[in-house]
Amino acid sequence: MSAAALNELSPYRAVIEPHWIDYNGHLRDAYYAVVFSRAIDDVMEQLGMGEEYRARTHCTLYTLELHFHYLHEVTAADELLVRTAVLDCDRKRFIAGSLFSCARIAAPVAAAEAVLLHVQQGDRPASAPFPAQIERRLQALRHAAAGRSDQIPRSRKLQLQQR
Amino acid sequence: MSAAALNELSPYRAVIEPHWIDYNGHLRDAYYAVVFSRAIDDVMEQLGMGEEYRARTHCTLYTLELHFHYLHEVTAADELLVRTAVLDCDRKRFIAGSLFSCARIAAPVAAAEAVLLHVQQGDRPASAPFPAQIERRLQALRHAAAGRSDQIPRSRKLQLQQR
Repeated sequence: MSAAALNELSPYRAVIEPHWIDYNGHLRDAYYAVVFSRAIDDVMEQLGMGEEYRARTHCTLYTLELHFHYLHEVTAADELLVRTAVLDCDRKRFIAGSLFSCARIAAPVAAAEAVLLHVQQGDRPASAPFPAQIERRLQALRHAAAGRSDQIPRSRKLQLQQR
Repeated sequence: MSAAALNELSPYRAVIEPHWIDYNGHLRDAYYAVVFSRAIDDVMEQLGMGEEYRARTHCTLYTLELHFHYLHEVTAADELLVRTAVLDCDRKRFIAGSLFSCARIAAPVAAAEAVLLHVQQGDRPASAPFPAQIERRLQALRHAAAGRSDQIPRSRKLQLQQR
């Protein structure tokens, strides 16, 4: 893997399913969340936290918070491209920030953020630190994202609260 | 309709569909949004903005923002009850705040908020004031909700930005 690839995540592409369109003729708000959730699954694969990792370690990610801004109407004919960056991270959590775009519109059509917690499952699920290699990758991704300005204003963003 | 009924919204009940469960054995984050979206449809009916209203006026609600807090794990066997309040409103918008609960757990399992904008559709969709009767109902609901304390802390809540 190249150094550049280590500092970015591959975008996720989603085809809109017909039953995702609401009575207004647009992609229903909730199905942006379905697309985002699948994009996060893809990010987990890219970070080395895919199916094999989950089976081996019994560790996974839990979503603590989710926040969407809806910016432009999306229709059944659109295909969504979801670009995700790591906006913040600590030993157990990271904030994934995604911009949704489609070929028809120049500006992003939606922005999403999620606070994700690394959890070891079992009889008593408990938060757990990331393996060192994944933590380093998250920090590299955060550092790369900090230099970019194509995100929504920070005042509207999620924060990692002290816990 | 009684005065009490004017000051509150009926809860929405959702049965969890099997394909909504993720690889962690829980209700996948995105499907809380599907439940919330259907609960908001139900709220629109209760406010007099259902199918007949939309057909007659070409007015509807657009979601501008959506924010979820995930508080407890929900499984396939749970049934969700969604109680919605009007947390804020102005002439064209309101913030719907919902608490999700299930019989198995005493505390809410999730909290959701949405900023919703009243829009007249057509060649150029544009925001439009609520009809006076609906605006009065929203104000009564907001007033009733302001006296309740069973919500998540205000610091984490959505705000109606000036526009």
